[in-house]
Amino acid sequence: MNRSIFRAWRSVQPGSSHPVAPGRRYASSASFNWEDPLAASELYTEEELAIQDTARQYCQERLLPRVLDGYRNEQYDRKIIKEMGELGLLGASIEGYGCAGASTVASGLIAKEVERVDSGYRSGMSVQSSLIMTGIYEFGTQEQKDRFLPELANGNLVGCFGLTEPNHGSDPGSIETIAKEHPTKKGQYLLSGAKTWITNSPISDVMLVWAKLESTGKIRGFLVERSKCPPGTLETPAIKNKNGLRASITGMIQMDDCPVAAENMFPDVEGLRGPFTCLNSARLGIAFGAMGALEDSLSRARTYALDRKQFKGNPLAKYQLIQKKLADAATDAAYGTLAATQVARLKDSNKLTPEMISMVKRQNCDRALTNVRALQEIFGGNAASDEYHIGRHVSNLFVVQTYEGQSDIHALILGRAITGVQAFC
Amino acid sequence: MNRSIFRAWRSVQPGSSHPVAPGRRYASSASFNWEDPLAASELYTEEELAIQDTARQYCQERLLPRVLDGYRNEQYDRKIIKEMGELGLLGASIEGYGCAGASTVASGLIAKEVERVDSGYRSGMSVQSSLIMTGIYEFGTQEQKDRFLPELANGNLVGCFGLTEPNHGSDPGSIETIAKEHPTKKGQYLLSGAKTWITNSPISDVMLVWAKLESTGKIRGFLVERSKCPPGTLETPAIKNKNGLRASITGMIQMDDCPVAAENMFPDVEGLRGPFTCLNSARLGIAFGAMGALEDSLSRARTYALDRKQFKGNPLAKYQLIQKKLADAATDAAYGTLAATQVARLKDSNKLTPEMISMVKRQNCDRALTNVRALQEIFGGNAASDEYHIGRHVSNLFVVQTYEGQSDIHALILGRAITGVQAFC
Amino acid sequence: MNRSIFRAWRSVQPGSSHPVAPGRRYASSASFNWEDPLAASELYTEEELAIQDTARQYCQERLLPRVLDGYRNEQYDRKIIKEMGELGLLGASIEGYGCAGASTVASGLIAKEVERVDSGYRSGMSVQSSLIMTGIYEFGTQEQKDRFLPELANGNLVGCFGLTEPNHGSDPGSIETIAKEHPTKKGQYLLSGAKTWITNSPISDVMLVWAKLESTGKIRGFLVERSKCPPGTLETPAIKNKNGLRASITGMIQMDDCPVAAENMFPDVEGLRGPFTCLNSARLGIAFGAMGALEDSLSRARTYALDRKQFKGNPLAKYQLIQKKLADAATDAAYGTLAATQVARLKDSNKLTPEMISMVKRQNCDRALTNVRALQEIFGGNAASDEYHIGRHVSNLFVVQTYEGQSDIHALILGRAITGVQAFC
Amino acid sequence: MNRSIFRAWRSVQPGSSHPVAPGRRYASSASFNWEDPLAASELYTEEELAIQDTARQYCQERLLPRVLDGYRNEQYDRKIIKEMGELGLLGASIEGYGCAGASTVASGLIAKEVERVDSGYRSGMSVQSSLIMTGIYEFGTQEQKDRFLPELANGNLVGCFGLTEPNHGSDPGSIETIAKEHPTKKGQYLLSGAKTWITNSPISDVMLVWAKLESTGKIRGFLVERSKCPPGTLETPAIKNKNGLRASITGMIQMDDCPVAAENMFPDVEGLRGPFTCLNSARLGIAFGAMGALEDSLSRARTYALDRKQFKGNPLAKYQLIQKKLADAATDAAYGTLAATQVARLKDSNKLTPEMISMVKRQNCDRALTNVRALQEIFGGNAASDEYHIGRHVSNLFVVQTYEGQSDIHALILGRAITGVQAFC
Repeated sequence: MNRSIFRAWRSVQPGSSHPVAPGRRYASSASFNWEDPLAASELYTEEELAIQDTARQYCQERLLPRVLDGYRNEQYDRKIIKEMGELGLLGASIEGYGCAGASTVASGLIAKEVERVDSGYRSGMSVQSSLIMTGIYEFGTQEQKDRFLPELANGNLVGCFGLTEPNHGSDPGSIETIAKEHPTKKGQYLLSGAKTWITNSPISDVMLVWAKLESTGKIRGFLVERSKCPPGTLETPAIKNKNGLRASITGMIQMDDCPVAAENMFPDVEGLRGPFTCLNSARLGIAFGAMGALEDSLSRARTYALDRKQFKGNPLAKYQLIQKKLADAATDAAYGTLAATQVARLKDSNKLTPEMISMVKRQNCDRALTNVRALQEIFGGNAASDEYHIGRHVSNLFVVQTYEGQSDIHALILGRAITGVQAFC
Repeated sequence: MNRSIFRAWRSVQPGSSHPVAPGRRYASSASFNWEDPLAASELYTEEELAIQDTARQYCQERLLPRVLDGYRNEQYDRKIIKEMGELGLLGASIEGYGCAGASTVASGLIAKEVERVDSGYRSGMSVQSSLIMTGIYEFGTQEQKDRFLPELANGNLVGCFGLTEPNHGSDPGSIETIAKEHPTKKGQYLLSGAKTWITNSPISDVMLVWAKLESTGKIRGFLVERSKCPPGTLETPAIKNKNGLRASITGMIQMDDCPVAAENMFPDVEGLRGPFTCLNSARLGIAFGAMGALEDSLSRARTYALDRKQFKGNPLAKYQLIQKKLADAATDAAYGTLAATQVARLKDSNKLTPEMISMVKRQNCDRALTNVRALQEIFGGNAASDEYHIGRHVSNLFVVQTYEGQSDIHALILGRAITGVQAFC
Repeated sequence: MNRSIFRAWRSVQPGSSHPVAPGRRYASSASFNWEDPLAASELYTEEELAIQDTARQYCQERLLPRVLDGYRNEQYDRKIIKEMGELGLLGASIEGYGCAGASTVASGLIAKEVERVDSGYRSGMSVQSSLIMTGIYEFGTQEQKDRFLPELANGNLVGCFGLTEPNHGSDPGSIETIAKEHPTKKGQYLLSGAKTWITNSPISDVMLVWAKLESTGKIRGFLVERSKCPPGTLETPAIKNKNGLRASITGMIQMDDCPVAAENMFPDVEGLRGPFTCLNSARLGIAFGAMGALEDSLSRARTYALDRKQFKGNPLAKYQLIQKKLADAATDAAYGTLAATQVARLKDSNKLTPEMISMVKRQNCDRALTNVRALQEIFGGNAASDEYHIGRHVSNLFVVQTYEGQSDIHALILGRAITGVQAFC
Repeated sequence: MNRSIFRAWRSVQPGSSHPVAPGRRYASSASFNWEDPLAASELYTEEELAIQDTARQYCQERLLPRVLDGYRNEQYDRKIIKEMGELGLLGASIEGYGCAGASTVASGLIAKEVERVDSGYRSGMSVQSSLIMTGIYEFGTQEQKDRFLPELANGNLVGCFGLTEPNHGSDPGSIETIAKEHPTKKGQYLLSGAKTWITNSPISDVMLVWAKLESTGKIRGFLVERSKCPPGTLETPAIKNKNGLRASITGMIQMDDCPVAAENMFPDVEGLRGPFTCLNSARLGIAFGAMGALEDSLSRARTYALDRKQFKGNPLAKYQLIQKKLADAATDAAYGTLAATQVARLKDSNKLTPEMISMVKRQNCDRALTNVRALQEIFGGNAASDEYHIGRHVSNLFVVQTYEGQSDIHALILGRAITGVQAFC
């Protein structure tokens, strides 16, 4: 069990690791809290609240000061993964292997706090926690778990997740990357193909790559270790000049007969079940995370509206058109937080279905984006300055709405679940 | 304690009146249920689910068959109040006085089931349960409670709530109805003034009328009994030709030196705290109720889309533009139900603030209306026929969005709570 | 040539039937006119403005006083067609046959003025002018024109247009009504089938019915004369309890071996070209008409907002959230009027394409409906009273958005025109 | 008269400078053109169309190749102004002084073509053409016109417009920059204050600065020449790290007793009439320009949707949800172009009011932004790459919506014009 996040909350609540009755913490207060309008915190355990506090403190003190430069210059500091690992934020809902074994809600609250600073930082963490660590934990051999999970959990290794290809975004069933058995060396596969829009790929030590096994035509998962790839078989060039998520690092994975040992292949899982399980874990983190970005935008817009005077010295906050934008944003943040919390609880009680995740990923991203754009208007011309942070959230959230299932794709997944008829044509 | 709703659920779950662990009921199932996409039912106790079942059964079997005629002809059957009383649906969260003493969530689920049939029927019930019964229960003398609550609970008496005046809709602080002491008869007040848009007024036996006490200028509550008003002092003409809520009955209360005994005045409460407490209770019911109307609309639109074939025999349900409308509606219904449930739970644990109610009343009404209008498009030309019910929900929900705090008014209440600045000018 | 509308404008501008330079009329004025914010009137000729004045005067003086009762009771006075005929408003852009021979813009302005009062009245007129009269004028034999057009133009005959069937709304290519040659009587067809949602059918003397000719399987147009149909072969029951357009009369056309003489069949036109030509004419009228309903709603909302005082005696008009709704509505009314005018001019210069009509029908209906719903909110609870007229416009415009091509259908027509790919699946 | 744009169109249409009958050019064609769905080109003269062609050719051949680098690196090449000047694109609607003397529509079409490439390039041009040149032309002395206009028209001089201050964005009446008479040198003023968000300021030779004259408290316009300002009296630092309009250059104007000769002050105009006249000219250009950015986005999204295959090889263009976005965008582009054209025509016939400009500036910016955001979704994850250009348009258009009157401000200007009541509080 990772000690760090527990240490943090234990200093708050020594001697107890059991959830307390929801609401105890704020029992005496019945005043309206615009930062938590529907009192979602009443639904969290002491442990979850302590983990959230730990994450928030780290994010505000250590991440926020780096984000302007990181975003301007498209630079991601790989030490961030190390720092997160030391705090126990990575793979936080995994049991064992040095992970915290916290609830899914706790993992969600970590994502929310990181994305309160920047969606790119949350993306880098999600790839590590939800995509590769969850993949190994769910589908890996015991040897794979023992070898990779502790090092990914403490941040010594950086990982990534290679599914999307240049010609196949919303339709991963058509991927073209191929894995064939080595013509001479038994127990080895050769991977060829290209993956794109892969967060962390240029700095990754280990990559979970999904490829079609030549012999079966089925999609399988491979753990590609950079250190074991001969020159010319693996390239991970960065993609620059992005419109959003510029504080994260994104790249391609180009493989040309890249050798991978058979023991690095996931043993059983075939087809899309493997990648979709990982993606669903990440998407739930996004549903929480997007609410963090929205809440930060609301807070900044509120401050600006109170500070900025126009027309006879009135603060912008006095204008009805401004107040409506703030009210809308607070409402959608509150609703989205409740919904993500509910789905996380259902996951932990084995009542989750993938459509629930489609619903909260889609809605929370859509509403976050819509509201953050409306809040951006409050800043007027000053919105163009990156020092107000709002433009960054807007640009980030567009990408967040789009990746891991664009909004319309999730609408059609839901439509299919509602009607029993599919409309992908 | 009212026996009826308990009897109903006891037949389902004999021997237990304690909440069971959430989720138990659906523990084995993890399939997606489009009628409850985020599994809100996991948050309800057995008792609450049983009450919901009782209410649903009554509404579908007894109310649905009457609604077309009632709406077409603007006729409301006062027996409905009696039937609801017999089932224990009235004032269900009140303890004692023949009321069920159920949770606020249970009351909300009753409202949802009634409004699944028709917002007008829910309005008629809300007036009885939330406006007048809550008013008496919270602010009445013991004698008033003993005299009125049991008869209102069992539906022998019909009540209404007189606050809104012709010139004062969103701004009740300016009401003009006046109560002066009788010039000669001690212990009697004479009320004069007009109230409008009063649900149930033409059929009410007792009316909770808010008036300014002449001697203090403060707003006070009076229980006006029709049977005790001499001819010419009280008129309650119906308002006809409404655009919505036509299955409910609405009227005015016109008082001309209408005599009310001093013991019918609420003893302590002064100003807007009295009416606002009642309204907040009703508004929370509306937040639940609107989700019922939305869910019914979704269900009907889904059925229509599956049954109706266009272009090469494909059902409408196969079209992306149709599926998106269904997905949006299901999402907003699920989110709104979770939010209303959370606020109801907070109420029962004394953590409620009025702004929370503004938030869920506003958002649930807005989203219900927006989605129901989009669903209406699925019906094409057939939407014009009242037999598809969808046009009725649309017309009703516009009124529901407007009454008890129009959406913009609640936005400004929230804006004030968020910023500390008021924008009513 | 019909004299009436010309008489009206001649009294304004004797001796000239030529367009004058646009703008002359308002040359000296450069003040903002909220009723015509982008000065569309500058684009109209004197003749067109005079015709609009004539139509407006009739509509405000003769139609407006009837509309409340007509809508409440679903009663349509067939004298309205007669009155419109006497004024020259019917088939106004047809040359000869007692029609006015005015421009397409003039016809559009007539539709706008009628729909300023009620979309149902405009529907009744559109059916006469655009659907049946245009059909006969474009596709009829000389004998058919001579026999029917003058009597339809002066309103002695009422006509209707039978295309939509119960199972085929958006997809008229699949209609099932059949016309077979009479087994014994040469020169006679027997029509069987059912048409639904047919405006004017219960009061029609002559019906343009589209049916598949049994011998060819091609759609052909037939002029069915009620007076010549033996008992039991033709029924036109009214459809009651509509949600909108209640001031118009709507019904079915049920034909059971209904005999029609061969000379009543359109001679050449086959397939969907015939009905689509008529529908396109009507749709352009709708694009104008919807702007009339929107402008009336704006005017009424503005008046209400100025008259209604809330909070310290301020008129609603002083509130930002109110002003934004008014500004949005005025903008969309101005834009939609310009676009409809442009398309009408293109029609008269033979540069029209059907997609243009899809664009303005769709956009003007969508924007009218959206804005009228927003304006409805200004009226608060009073919106529920039909005496404010706003609820009627809302209900009407939903139907108008839906009929003659639901908004989504026109979106897909446009999408196909833009991409060259069709998406009806 | 500037020769260049005339030369260009003369080569197309020698011997005629008179408008031809609208429509002649496309007379034979009645096929739908998705790039001009409502045939706005029918409203333009040959001269206007030729000017548009000239501008489009320059923009596509010379500006488009520079924009990616310019936007990435926030670099603006001042040679662009020189090139535009040589072509006659600057101050094109001014008569004399080396300007083209074209119509306001022609100026608008130039703006549209430039913004089709980039809103920042259009901004740089607008500042030169509409803000400073219009200012001098309308309000300058003859000597000022003779001295500055020809050099601004040919691009030898670069100008800018200093109105907005750090504390006064939407409320220019409160500006703090002060001009006082020199204590000793007669005929000289000393300007002190700071202007911010000034397009072109770092590269400007001459700046039109609005300041309050100390002696009267009235706002006056001053032409500040950089070459005549001693060191330390004028600084124009660039503002870096903008979220949008990165291909334009923006900065501050910091003046500290900056000396300006009295003959560089506008002679008569006082108060806000001066700057507002300039702004209105620029805003009309924005209304055209935004449609250019929208049309380019539509064209790129359409191409992407046709090229990109997903799910069984279908192009994205086949999906209904994609087609709806394209149809919406085409519609708003067509409507906005018609409206801007109408207002430009009204300006040239002296029938313009400022509210008309508020309407088209606001609506065209709002609709452009909304649609471009929807189109961005079509690109999926690839939208994050700047090589698809769509993200750039989105970021630019947000700024364009905000500057020169944020959307809400124009809504309140319109609201005031509609109701006669002002709501700025």
